[in-house]
Amino acid sequence: MLKEHLMENNDKEKIKQKKIFDIASRAVLASRELRIISSDSKKNALIKIAELIDQKSEDIQFRNEIDVEAAKEDNLPAALIDRLLLDGKRIKSMTDGIREVAAMEDPVGEVLSHYTRPNGLVIDKVRVPLGVIAMIYESRPNVTGDSAALCLMSSNAVILRGGTEALNSNLAIGHYIREALKGTDIPQDAVQIIDDSDRNLINYLVSLKGMVDVVIPRGSEEMIETISRMSSVPVIGHGKGLCHIYIDSSADRKKAVEIVYNAKVQRPGVCNAVETLLVHTDAARSILPAVCEKLRSAQVELRGDEAAREICQMNEATEEDWSTEYLSLILSVKIVGSLEEAVEHIEKYGSRHSDCIIAEDREACDRFTDVVDSACVYCNASTRFTDGNQMGLGAEIGISNQKLHARGPMGLKELTSYKYLIRGNGQIRQ
Amino acid sequence: MLKEHLMENNDKEKIKQKKIFDIASRAVLASRELRIISSDSKKNALIKIAELIDQKSEDIQFRNEIDVEAAKEDNLPAALIDRLLLDGKRIKSMTDGIREVAAMEDPVGEVLSHYTRPNGLVIDKVRVPLGVIAMIYESRPNVTGDSAALCLMSSNAVILRGGTEALNSNLAIGHYIREALKGTDIPQDAVQIIDDSDRNLINYLVSLKGMVDVVIPRGSEEMIETISRMSSVPVIGHGKGLCHIYIDSSADRKKAVEIVYNAKVQRPGVCNAVETLLVHTDAARSILPAVCEKLRSAQVELRGDEAAREICQMNEATEEDWSTEYLSLILSVKIVGSLEEAVEHIEKYGSRHSDCIIAEDREACDRFTDVVDSACVYCNASTRFTDGNQMGLGAEIGISNQKLHARGPMGLKELTSYKYLIRGNGQIRQ
Repeated sequence: MLKEHLMENNDKEKIKQKKIFDIASRAVLASRELRIISSDSKKNALIKIAELIDQKSEDIQFRNEIDVEAAKEDNLPAALIDRLLLDGKRIKSMTDGIREVAAMEDPVGEVLSHYTRPNGLVIDKVRVPLGVIAMIYESRPNVTGDSAALCLMSSNAVILRGGTEALNSNLAIGHYIREALKGTDIPQDAVQIIDDSDRNLINYLVSLKGMVDVVIPRGSEEMIETISRMSSVPVIGHGKGLCHIYIDSSADRKKAVEIVYNAKVQRPGVCNAVETLLVHTDAARSILPAVCEKLRSAQVELRGDEAAREICQMNEATEEDWSTEYLSLILSVKIVGSLEEAVEHIEKYGSRHSDCIIAEDREACDRFTDVVDSACVYCNASTRFTDGNQMGLGAEIGISNQKLHARGPMGLKELTSYKYLIRGNGQIRQ
Repeated sequence: MLKEHLMENNDKEKIKQKKIFDIASRAVLASRELRIISSDSKKNALIKIAELIDQKSEDIQFRNEIDVEAAKEDNLPAALIDRLLLDGKRIKSMTDGIREVAAMEDPVGEVLSHYTRPNGLVIDKVRVPLGVIAMIYESRPNVTGDSAALCLMSSNAVILRGGTEALNSNLAIGHYIREALKGTDIPQDAVQIIDDSDRNLINYLVSLKGMVDVVIPRGSEEMIETISRMSSVPVIGHGKGLCHIYIDSSADRKKAVEIVYNAKVQRPGVCNAVETLLVHTDAARSILPAVCEKLRSAQVELRGDEAAREICQMNEATEEDWSTEYLSLILSVKIVGSLEEAVEHIEKYGSRHSDCIIAEDREACDRFTDVVDSACVYCNASTRFTDGNQMGLGAEIGISNQKLHARGPMGLKELTSYKYLIRGNGQIRQ
């Protein structure tokens, strides 16, 4: 009986894997068509997608309600339910985003370099799509529309696997994307949604080397870790943002107060919000009280080391605080003896995402930006600017804090690779 | 007893892992010093390395003899023993290579883009080192010198793990590299050799995410596969080259004969040598006999499909031949009905390394280069040019056939990442 049961389960798993394999096979075929698609065809298709989603907004909201109701029944946290919710405004904002991507410059086909070798070989290094992207993400269903638009505009086929709690919403958005692609030059299979929330299938998907070219996980650190370990396909993780602001002894008080407040309070739940404040001991008495006062006006909880607690009243920070990405109105505070000590702390606890120095001394700024090895290193500005749109790179699929391929905001260009076209007239190697 | 034995083994394994962990820790510290090293310091250090290796050439040859003798005793294949051998000429060629790298332009610090946002933020995208590179390779001990030079010149720390059969040679080269670094601005720990040939330690090394930034395996396909699956650190594999040449109906016979001969015979044991010849049916009778005759003059074994065998006498090709990287004087031959059929075959069996069309028809060339998705796509030239030096990119650490980060020859620039420096005067996000 047990054996039969196991065999049955095994068969079920195989049937499910076959479905994923078929999805990947169709994505490969679609990606081959996309290699030679024109910019106009892509722009036209994206506009059609935006139009249809706008038209079907009510139906998508209806499907979304099913997810939201289920989440409420399951007593999921209010913040998660809020992120899950799609109202008319959020759907409009998603379709505006898709139209923005359609208006962006096509990255594919760009000639990155062109030169002639002494033997007459003419070499062009040309930007090409990555191929098939597997995108694995959590909760917010508007990511489905954003990601599909960015992948299509960069001529990639995409396989989308969103969070279980958003399955109905994602399937609805995916359905209308594919509907809209009918009658355009883009094959429908360029966008496919996995409708099975079995987690083992993710492991199977990321094992399909040779079919899937890149895996982009976007979500919790654990999720990204697990996928990185399981995957035989290259992974670009969009993970943790444990961002620091260091107030140097040469800092301007007003700038310090405004920047720290903005970086913590303007949107605390995102990866580019600040989590730890480092203050030079010489600036602590003159600047920290004003910073704390302003933060308290927004109900920010402060957790400090002993030296910080001597200057402002706050809770005690434990060792764990330095490595915690709060994603909420909490800030840890540490007094340091030097810029070097601040850098050491960032090196030890940071996530190489966004780190900032506030200093009027140009030399101190340069030392900090030279040595700190993060995707975005700031001098006198809020870490909240780490964002494709804010940095003038256009919409982004996420923010990478790994060093390979894409670092920081990952937009259209970062969704491409290149190849060398080498033209000769009979050259052979001596 | 068994339990004790297991515990003892477990302890031994832990002690070994601790050694690897310490190597990685020292590499991390070295990589931090390398972030701010000057070009002159790097060039000076590389020249010192080349000088010392030249001076110690005889000692290195003596150590190499130990490896070569052991390989002979173990009855390793002659080709492998040849690759293992270091004579005075090969050592000189390695030090010449190191001097060449020292003369190359420093990639680090290059400003990739510089712009000012409407809010006054000044953004520089700057090239930076990757950090700590783990290089895992097989047999040829001169790779030790080449890789160390490229990693140092791109300001990376490197952990080298060569093949077991070359351990004495690699340790000798590594020893003199580190000796030469004494008294330069580069910390000795920027180059470390793993002296333990226990394979489990590779698995441990590639699990050190957060310490090791990139793993570069260079060797057999199986080796690269295994490492990709084990690694939680991003991997850039340098693998299989199953290269194709397609002779179009518009091909020039003389060019076809010369290019195919060069791509197969000039150096058959390397990844950019051709393995499969595809011939358009309209060109088969007019061109294939001359190609076969020329190849036979170099004792190349031909294996053809039925149509090819009707034209030239050759052995029968099996399904397995189309996916075999011979790395020797064997060539598989297939007759195809169209350019599209050739592309299909390359898509199905190719390794996305280097593929070539021979055609006088410009439109056919363009169709082929547009559609074939390989690192290097050739028109009327030998695939043997897929090489950093030949393509004018300088020395290379390998040839990548993945699409993420680096594609094709991987030289100094491909051993770097970038970061954004964002300078403001108090900007906050609205």
